[in-house]
Amino acid sequence: MSVLETWTSARLALLDGYMHPLFTDAWPPSFADPCRYPLFGGGKRIRPLLVLAAFEAVRDGSPDAVLPAAAAVELVHTYSLVHDDLPCMDDDDERRGRPTVHRAFDEATAVLAGDALLTEAFRVLATAPLPADVRIHLVEELATAAGYLGMVGGQAADVTLGASIHDPAVLERLHRLKTGALLRASVRMGGRAAGATVQQLDALTAYGDHVGLAFQLADDVLDADEAEDDDGPPSFVRLLGVDATRARAIELAERAVDAARTLESPVLEALARRIADRDV
Amino acid sequence: MSVLETWTSARLALLDGYMHPLFTDAWPPSFADPCRYPLFGGGKRIRPLLVLAAFEAVRDGSPDAVLPAAAAVELVHTYSLVHDDLPCMDDDDERRGRPTVHRAFDEATAVLAGDALLTEAFRVLATAPLPADVRIHLVEELATAAGYLGMVGGQAADVTLGASIHDPAVLERLHRLKTGALLRASVRMGGRAAGATVQQLDALTAYGDHVGLAFQLADDVLDADEAEDDDGPPSFVRLLGVDATRARAIELAERAVDAARTLESPVLEALARRIADRDV
Repeated sequence: MSVLETWTSARLALLDGYMHPLFTDAWPPSFADPCRYPLFGGGKRIRPLLVLAAFEAVRDGSPDAVLPAAAAVELVHTYSLVHDDLPCMDDDDERRGRPTVHRAFDEATAVLAGDALLTEAFRVLATAPLPADVRIHLVEELATAAGYLGMVGGQAADVTLGASIHDPAVLERLHRLKTGALLRASVRMGGRAAGATVQQLDALTAYGDHVGLAFQLADDVLDADEAEDDDGPPSFVRLLGVDATRARAIELAERAVDAARTLESPVLEALARRIADRDV
Repeated sequence: MSVLETWTSARLALLDGYMHPLFTDAWPPSFADPCRYPLFGGGKRIRPLLVLAAFEAVRDGSPDAVLPAAAAVELVHTYSLVHDDLPCMDDDDERRGRPTVHRAFDEATAVLAGDALLTEAFRVLATAPLPADVRIHLVEELATAAGYLGMVGGQAADVTLGASIHDPAVLERLHRLKTGALLRASVRMGGRAAGATVQQLDALTAYGDHVGLAFQLADDVLDADEAEDDDGPPSFVRLLGVDATRARAIELAERAVDAARTLESPVLEALARRIADRDV
C-alpha cells in the first residue's frame, strides 16, 4: 500500500468508529434506517479526509478532537445527495449502485432524513472536544459553506439557471458554491480546529479553493459524453471542450499541490492529485 | 392596548429590524424570494417571542443580544413549514392565506429554500453578540430540538405512525417532539442567553414543556371537526374527546403560568394563556 492508502484506511477506521453510533437512538426506531442508509452507503469520505489531513498538517498527535468536524462535513454532504436525488430535483433512482433514499423508503422520509442529517451536523459539531470559541468558528464556517451563500445557493443556481449557462465564469461561480464551498470549508475547519496560524489558514484556503474547482472540472471530463446533450447539466466540457477543461483541472491541482508543499503535508499533496483525477 | 400587546408589538418591531436583511444578498438573486416569502408571510412569531420573554425574565435591559437566537428559532420553524407543506408530505396548497412555497415557486425551489432557512439558523446563531460558550450551548440546544431527537423525529413519527396511533401516550410523545421540542428550546435558549441560574433554567424548561404540549392540545380542539375523520391526522380529540383534551390544555397552561410566576414574568404568564387558547 502507498503512504496515502495506509493513512487513508487508518483515518477511515477512526471516522467510522466515531460515526457508527449516529442515529441509532432514533424514535421512532424505524427512522434510524433512512438516516443511516445513505451515511453508510459506500461514500468515499473525501471531505472528512480533507478535514483530517488539514488538521494533521497543522498539529501533530491524535486527530480525535477533529473527528466530530470530519463527521459533520460528511453529514452535510450526505444530506445534500439525499435531497438532490429527489424526484423534484435530479430524480435519480440509484446512487452508488443502490436505490436512492426516496426509492428505498419513500419521498417524505427522504426529505426528513436529509433534514435530520443536516441538523445532526451542527449538533455533532457543537459537542466536539474543542474550545468553545473554536467550535463556534466551525459552526459559522460550516453554516456559511452549506447555506444559501454556499452549497444550497449553488444548487439553486443549478436549478434556476442550469442548462441556460453559456458563460464559463457563471458556471465557475455556480460550482465554487455548489461543490467548492464545502470542500474549501473542510480544509479550513480542519485547520481552525488545529489552531492554524493566519498563514497556514491562508494556504489551506487556497488549497481548498483550487481543489474544490478542480474536483468539478475533473467530474465534467469524466461525464464528457453528457456534455454533448444540449439539455444536460451545465458543463465546462460543453463550454470549453474536453482538452481545455482537463488542462484547467491539472493546473488547479498543481496550484493545490504547491499550497500543500508550503504546509509540508504530503497527504494533502497526494489528496489533491487524487481529487483532480477523481481517483478517490 | 394591553401590557402584552404593547410588549409584543415593540419586540416584533425589533425582530423584524434584525430579520429584514436576511437572504437579501443571495446569488442567484432570484433565490432570495423563495427564502424570504415564507419568512415574511404573516407568521405570528410565537417562538421568537418566547425567546425574548425568557431572556427578559432573567436579565433586565436591551434584548438586542438575543435577537439572533429569536430569529434562529423562527428560521427553523419556517423551514419546517415549507418542507411539511410539500406534495410528498402534507401536500398543502395554501398557508396563511397565500400559496405555499412549492406553489408560488416550484417543488425543487421549496426543498432548497427550506434547506437554506434551516442552515441560516445556525449561521445567525453562530454570529450572535454573546460569549462563545453561550453561543455553542445555543447551537447544541437548537440542533437537538430541531433534529431527529426532536422536531424532525416527531414529523417522522407522524409520517410513519400517523393515523394508526391509538395510545394517547404515544401521541403525546410524538407531539412533545414535533411541536414541543422547539417551543421548549425557545425558552431555554432565551434563558441561557441571559445567563439563567440552574433554578431559572429549570423553571423555564418546565414552562416550555407545559406550553409545548398545551399548544398542540389547543390546536386539536380547534381542529375537532377533522378528528371525526378516521384517516385524518392523529388527534388528542379523537383519542380523548373534546372535553378531556380542552381540560388537559387548561391544566398544562396553569402549570406553565405557575412556572412563569416563580420567574416573576407577567409576559411569560400572559403568553402561556394565549398559547393555550391559540389566541396568538
